[in-house]
Amino acid sequence: MVKKVSIIGASGYTGGELLRWALMHPEMQVSQITSERFAGQAAYKLNPNLRGFTQLQFTPVKQLSMDVDAVFICTPHKTAAPYVKQFMGTGAKIIDLSADFRLRSKETYAKYYAVHPHPELLEKAVYGIPELHREEIKNAQLVACAGCLATSVILPLAPLVKNGLISLESIIADSKIGSSAGGAGFDISTHHPERQGGVRSYKPSGHRHTAEIEQELSAIIGAPVSVGLTPHGIEMVRGILSTVHARLAGKTSDIDLWKAYRSFFAGSPFVRLVKDQNTLYRYPEPKPVVGTNFADIGWELDPEKGRIIVMSAIDNLVKGSGGQAIQCFNLMSGFDEKLGLWSPGFHPL
Amino acid sequence: MVKKVSIIGASGYTGGELLRWALMHPEMQVSQITSERFAGQAAYKLNPNLRGFTQLQFTPVKQLSMDVDAVFICTPHKTAAPYVKQFMGTGAKIIDLSADFRLRSKETYAKYYAVHPHPELLEKAVYGIPELHREEIKNAQLVACAGCLATSVILPLAPLVKNGLISLESIIADSKIGSSAGGAGFDISTHHPERQGGVRSYKPSGHRHTAEIEQELSAIIGAPVSVGLTPHGIEMVRGILSTVHARLAGKTSDIDLWKAYRSFFAGSPFVRLVKDQNTLYRYPEPKPVVGTNFADIGWELDPEKGRIIVMSAIDNLVKGSGGQAIQCFNLMSGFDEKLGLWSPGFHPL
Amino acid sequence: MVKKVSIIGASGYTGGELLRWALMHPEMQVSQITSERFAGQAAYKLNPNLRGFTQLQFTPVKQLSMDVDAVFICTPHKTAAPYVKQFMGTGAKIIDLSADFRLRSKETYAKYYAVHPHPELLEKAVYGIPELHREEIKNAQLVACAGCLATSVILPLAPLVKNGLISLESIIADSKIGSSAGGAGFDISTHHPERQGGVRSYKPSGHRHTAEIEQELSAIIGAPVSVGLTPHGIEMVRGILSTVHARLAGKTSDIDLWKAYRSFFAGSPFVRLVKDQNTLYRYPEPKPVVGTNFADIGWELDPEKGRIIVMSAIDNLVKGSGGQAIQCFNLMSGFDEKLGLWSPGFHPL
Amino acid sequence: MVKKVSIIGASGYTGGELLRWALMHPEMQVSQITSERFAGQAAYKLNPNLRGFTQLQFTPVKQLSMDVDAVFICTPHKTAAPYVKQFMGTGAKIIDLSADFRLRSKETYAKYYAVHPHPELLEKAVYGIPELHREEIKNAQLVACAGCLATSVILPLAPLVKNGLISLESIIADSKIGSSAGGAGFDISTHHPERQGGVRSYKPSGHRHTAEIEQELSAIIGAPVSVGLTPHGIEMVRGILSTVHARLAGKTSDIDLWKAYRSFFAGSPFVRLVKDQNTLYRYPEPKPVVGTNFADIGWELDPEKGRIIVMSAIDNLVKGSGGQAIQCFNLMSGFDEKLGLWSPGFHPL
Repeated sequence: MVKKVSIIGASGYTGGELLRWALMHPEMQVSQITSERFAGQAAYKLNPNLRGFTQLQFTPVKQLSMDVDAVFICTPHKTAAPYVKQFMGTGAKIIDLSADFRLRSKETYAKYYAVHPHPELLEKAVYGIPELHREEIKNAQLVACAGCLATSVILPLAPLVKNGLISLESIIADSKIGSSAGGAGFDISTHHPERQGGVRSYKPSGHRHTAEIEQELSAIIGAPVSVGLTPHGIEMVRGILSTVHARLAGKTSDIDLWKAYRSFFAGSPFVRLVKDQNTLYRYPEPKPVVGTNFADIGWELDPEKGRIIVMSAIDNLVKGSGGQAIQCFNLMSGFDEKLGLWSPGFHPL
Repeated sequence: MVKKVSIIGASGYTGGELLRWALMHPEMQVSQITSERFAGQAAYKLNPNLRGFTQLQFTPVKQLSMDVDAVFICTPHKTAAPYVKQFMGTGAKIIDLSADFRLRSKETYAKYYAVHPHPELLEKAVYGIPELHREEIKNAQLVACAGCLATSVILPLAPLVKNGLISLESIIADSKIGSSAGGAGFDISTHHPERQGGVRSYKPSGHRHTAEIEQELSAIIGAPVSVGLTPHGIEMVRGILSTVHARLAGKTSDIDLWKAYRSFFAGSPFVRLVKDQNTLYRYPEPKPVVGTNFADIGWELDPEKGRIIVMSAIDNLVKGSGGQAIQCFNLMSGFDEKLGLWSPGFHPL
Repeated sequence: MVKKVSIIGASGYTGGELLRWALMHPEMQVSQITSERFAGQAAYKLNPNLRGFTQLQFTPVKQLSMDVDAVFICTPHKTAAPYVKQFMGTGAKIIDLSADFRLRSKETYAKYYAVHPHPELLEKAVYGIPELHREEIKNAQLVACAGCLATSVILPLAPLVKNGLISLESIIADSKIGSSAGGAGFDISTHHPERQGGVRSYKPSGHRHTAEIEQELSAIIGAPVSVGLTPHGIEMVRGILSTVHARLAGKTSDIDLWKAYRSFFAGSPFVRLVKDQNTLYRYPEPKPVVGTNFADIGWELDPEKGRIIVMSAIDNLVKGSGGQAIQCFNLMSGFDEKLGLWSPGFHPL
Repeated sequence: MVKKVSIIGASGYTGGELLRWALMHPEMQVSQITSERFAGQAAYKLNPNLRGFTQLQFTPVKQLSMDVDAVFICTPHKTAAPYVKQFMGTGAKIIDLSADFRLRSKETYAKYYAVHPHPELLEKAVYGIPELHREEIKNAQLVACAGCLATSVILPLAPLVKNGLISLESIIADSKIGSSAGGAGFDISTHHPERQGGVRSYKPSGHRHTAEIEQELSAIIGAPVSVGLTPHGIEMVRGILSTVHARLAGKTSDIDLWKAYRSFFAGSPFVRLVKDQNTLYRYPEPKPVVGTNFADIGWELDPEKGRIIVMSAIDNLVKGSGGQAIQCFNLMSGFDEKLGLWSPGFHPL
């Protein structure tokens, strides 16, 4: 049965990406997209790819309709929570793409973001990575979609943490990320001559996504997991490659690792294990996942140093936000999680 | 009814792109993909985007099966013709992506390519741009898919030529093209440090696609049309922007042009007219069509100089080859031409 | 003898580039750089390349000193003219990099820009392309540096026009240009996710530089020359490739062209003729001239169509502005025009 | 006094870069450049940037002259050693850019490369990073230039190791590197459509440069230092950003770090400390050092995790090979180490 959905804060890159997938989804009908700044403008003016696919215009939020089966919230953190509160009472499924309900602890939220406007709702939310919380998502009214960097770091680590294969301290996630992750807002740092070809470690320590990464990994093992996250903006519009460096807990073979990864991701169609031979693409890379909801994961052991290097590649706007949101929506709606999302990337791209 | 198809010469970029679309097409079943060099290898090893979508392996051509509903031929010019001859007798639909059957005249073929191995078949072929030859394609057994540059130059010019709006002499097509158009073969000219960031006018005059461009445009008006084609390899993997410069035949307004373009492309879902205001994307650009079968076309008049500048953007591997081939296949098979091809691009990309 | 110079409006890309060359110049001493917006800031904060080379800070223009041997003006058009007027009375050499004094006709200036604030000074200015006006520049107090696109179009055409080799009508200049040409100011059009990989014909007809191109070429032959200029922003930070398409006036051979070009540019060390064989770099390309003051020029005849395609490559910030300004300064100061400018580019880059 | 120098194996990117700097050096005269494959060709055919700067042609090595003041060897590892042996007897200064004499231990050389052809010469070589071995280089006949990745990892770590500020275990160097580091040889992995936009962890563990990194850092402290090196090819032609992750040995402040770095690099003009505020370029990035011999170094403490993240940026072809070779040559020749090397990069680039 077709679901009526709306997107709040739809004029950004996340909203545009969601809109694309929603328009092509066989069981979704987009009834409303909101934007204050672009109210009255056609969506295809901001999203030239959608020319010919929709005549939808942005509406101001004061005209927001409550009558939807599901709502996607793409506004900045702290501004999403009031919408969540509003829709909780309508029974609509709520997929919040902001950071507002990702953290279980209001103290941690306060440390990384701000005082939480509706802390009483924190316990209602399920963290939106289906590969970790599939069953809870199916039954949730409110899903807090994971951050893009967080998704790219949690997925490759989860099987290792769960199986006790690595030391829980001293994990380093060195991420390479495209410019679209910064959103549609611009300043001198995103000015093409300054940003093009750059390799910019804009937040070497203390990045906000650390909080959700540590929360989720700690929950898996029931013990504190410490991850140092260092993202770098590199020459790329879409895509993340996270290189995760960890100390092995003991002796581990590739067979152990294949088992751990295969078992953890059994039933997870959007995770592909990439550890190959006789091909140029031996490990995950962002290019083959751009425009898709896949998370490609691969690794290399360094037995001499007792370490492992795990790589994961996602499209920050798909598996890192809009696509994962649809995947959650599918689960919440009783659909196959692949519905409307099952398409390969392009090669070469 | 699902059609059984095969792809000959499937290990190149055109073959890989075709395979992607064919695998996702609701009415196609790929029974065979051939490659001498990669015989026995899984297709996803060359096409990392297809990991998880197919286990198909390349077979050597000596194991080629004749039992297919349609065959796509992606081998180099001169080597495609023998396959065409072979399959003509089986009744299979033949979509040839090489240059072998694009030209009506064996003399012109000889001038630009080589002595034609099977000139007697030239008259059987229909030139594969549906926007020009939709009805003939529906009834053809053999379609010769247009070249990528040719597609990007013919489409924006056809309505102008047909309506007598421009001088037939002194047309200049200055094209900007991505590196994937050169194919999967590599040499020093495609070596990343040499090619990256380059703006290379590798063939300023006398490019082979000139022949098909002039053939098709001349056929529209029944008079010789002369086009100077100057392609430039620029920093881009996929995509073509062709900027066509022409002298106006007389006084012409934007309204005349809108009429000419709208009327010519009525019923052509894959052509979008892009001449916009109040948006960043006022004219066609390659990025919004990458990964799609669209040809975006726009123009600007220069009344002071009595000239028009027309821009067209396509993805060289989709509307410029693999996608257009599927579009022809759809027509030849009695399907809606959009079947399996109707998807928007990504933004930002 | 070392010259004391200042740069007005030094916080943009042109100012930064000028500063770089001036700091390394053996006979220049930079006494002042002005900027309202960045007053008090160190220049190396905006120009990370200059860290360790200068402690100069921007000063507000109200502290502008008149006591200099030469002044470079890098403010926007219309705002440069008052500074020119001010310095004319001091005897200082004035190199204006704005458009204010490029056009001889105040009517043309008004058509393309605005009402000229000091039209009486127009006749004092020499157009700043040394390859055309070397002797006048040597004796000028005021030089109006050529626009970057204009430089890239005038240089390849001048020898053809002078020798009557091409038709003066129907010349098309199709230019490809890097993002730095738009300056340090940013908006959505320069936002990396929107600009990266783009091929954007932002001004297909009526570009302002047309005025100076036609003025200079017409002056060479004493007859009106018409040039249609269509620039495209492409994926590149620095560099211009202009592809100039023209109709031959009569039968012309490569030998004629070599003679015309060699003779025109005899004594012009910064023009290199690039028409080569047995190398990847057969025609001009931007990459080998990035960071240099060279203009590389090459061509290809199309005898069948009676046309010529000429390509020219420059670095828009060097030969297209800051470097050419220094070249003019050298001539005005009695120095060798190569002084402080004679360095090769980098390969690969 | 001008030194006569030759470059053996000059047709690669390292040789081309060396040639560029040597041609512009006030005290060098290049007497010979050798290449088997390109013997007889002009150097500017391979290096389009050098057009107009030299008419030198490659000579075959059988015509190699022994009569030089200094020789630069740019041939692959194992093939450099015989030349070194040959020139040791002539008294010429030898700067070897291969890996042949970087390691003190023939066993380590055998482990990472091959059986050493001339192990008796290993003790004669000085490791060619002036910031570590300035005095020894001044007196050396043979200098083994450091690897590019090694340079980018050793420099930021040396002051930390020397001052006991970090744990000597568990150091991770996650490097991002441009395509020119792979040299002028091409294959499918460097084919533009496959390499462009890629983020490829081609050797996650066990990279050869690990050997020289650990050798040099261990020598500083007299204890084994363990470094896990994971390089990633990213979209960039020139440049390396190495992000080094280490555990702090104890409580350390930014002041301690400033002191350690300032003191270690006192008298080292090519190291710039970049840890800035109020600017876009707060940490090192490759772009501002491209085309220069600088190593920019910066850091960020993560007190919560007891860690430090150090970033270093170099141009792999300059400070990472050709430039550092000239810097060594200067020292060996009694010149100021900045001679002919002191120039800023370009911004924006």
